[in-house]
Amino acid sequence: MHFMTALRAAWQQRDSLLCVGLDPDPARFPAHLQGRPDAIFEFCAAIVDATADLVCSFKPQIAYFAARRAEDQLEALIDHIHAHHPGVPVILDAKRGDIGSTAEQYAVEAFERFKADAITVNPYMGRDSVDPYLAYPDKGVILLCRTSNPGGSDLQFLDVGGEKLYERVARLVAEDWNASGNCGLVVGATFPAEIARVRALTGEMPLLVPGIGAQGGDIEATVKAGRTAAGGGLMINSSRAILYAGKGEDFAAAARAAALQTRDAINAYR
Amino acid sequence: MHFMTALRAAWQQRDSLLCVGLDPDPARFPAHLQGRPDAIFEFCAAIVDATADLVCSFKPQIAYFAARRAEDQLEALIDHIHAHHPGVPVILDAKRGDIGSTAEQYAVEAFERFKADAITVNPYMGRDSVDPYLAYPDKGVILLCRTSNPGGSDLQFLDVGGEKLYERVARLVAEDWNASGNCGLVVGATFPAEIARVRALTGEMPLLVPGIGAQGGDIEATVKAGRTAAGGGLMINSSRAILYAGKGEDFAAAARAAALQTRDAINAYR
Repeated sequence: MHFMTALRAAWQQRDSLLCVGLDPDPARFPAHLQGRPDAIFEFCAAIVDATADLVCSFKPQIAYFAARRAEDQLEALIDHIHAHHPGVPVILDAKRGDIGSTAEQYAVEAFERFKADAITVNPYMGRDSVDPYLAYPDKGVILLCRTSNPGGSDLQFLDVGGEKLYERVARLVAEDWNASGNCGLVVGATFPAEIARVRALTGEMPLLVPGIGAQGGDIEATVKAGRTAAGGGLMINSSRAILYAGKGEDFAAAARAAALQTRDAINAYR
Repeated sequence: MHFMTALRAAWQQRDSLLCVGLDPDPARFPAHLQGRPDAIFEFCAAIVDATADLVCSFKPQIAYFAARRAEDQLEALIDHIHAHHPGVPVILDAKRGDIGSTAEQYAVEAFERFKADAITVNPYMGRDSVDPYLAYPDKGVILLCRTSNPGGSDLQFLDVGGEKLYERVARLVAEDWNASGNCGLVVGATFPAEIARVRALTGEMPLLVPGIGAQGGDIEATVKAGRTAAGGGLMINSSRAILYAGKGEDFAAAARAAALQTRDAINAYR
């Protein structure tokens, strides 16, 4: 299924703009999972099964798997999501960016090896570094625009001919790179005014919004700034606040409660 | 050993500014390696053994391994380089870029799992996205500055307050991020005037220069623009023109001949 079609259906049918980020840190796993060979898969699959009816997407962060030589568990996790929760799109958070011939390899990694429905991509190297992902018309390509970290301003907030660099990125993507209608943008929840600006520049384009929860972004301001007229347009990501809501054997139930609360807090302003 | 120390020693003792890029594409391997389970390792290790005395560094491109589920062969390859060619630094070409907590995981991947001596990093997310790599003082952190692909100009050549974005990146790295003296920059050989500009902004900072060979960059112009007074300062990368110089069982000897010719062509202008 086309990523955008699946995402729109998930927004409606699951009544949710929440994206659960899967950033598995074994040091924070409950004691009963510690040391098990497939602990990363078991932890993430339990979170997924407990929250799938409450989310519009899942976003595994590949670095947490790669640091622990656990690519096989990431493959198994995405297979698990597709098999048990069909219709919930999976965004591989990889933030890749390289020349075309190398980007082709990264696209194979994301879409053919890991079978992700979408990938996050860094725009610094320009259009031809993004084309190999865009060449998969059913897949989503979500470009970094305005990131939620403090250093995001070092480059993204520079003035470039009467606008900020992140605004130029938003316009480039909306006016040029999105010819196949499969692009999205990353805009941090820590900057609601800039979410509103990106929304104004990009029409109905889906925005992936990290930064609520552990990073301190405000849900009300985020939703009001970024929602579309149809009440969609956003994938509001929460990772740590949901994954580590509980510390014991009931961690998945605690994660479900945190996801439910977050989804409802978002929907209150939708 | 500190990356910068190893690099300077390699420039002198091996009399070379050549970096051989390891971008293994099995479709282009010689027939006798086709279909072998460790073909990627065998191909790359043969190239390494045939060229190690002619290079200042090796640069494996992780996408080519990840697309084929071959991270184990990348680990084995870097182990092989360290064991058989001690003193030749290994740059993991990964172009990572993410918020601090995620960048910590990527740093573990690059420096602890793969045991690379340096990594390429994308600067779009700013200083705190780079700090976790800089926290390894013995490792090299090579930031994208001016890339060799056509789309490189989409963002990097924008005017930001009287300079181009790539110049701002060069200054940020030289004046701020390089406090521990372990940074380098990527500047494409397709833009010699911009190599000269980056050299002027960054003193003796090592520049990783892709784009000669298959991408069409000029060796003479590159060396004259980027060399330091001491005849160092450059890692001039060639990948495909060396890896695929031969198509038969003598592919490693053909790669050596191509590497020797390239090294000497570089040294003629050093």
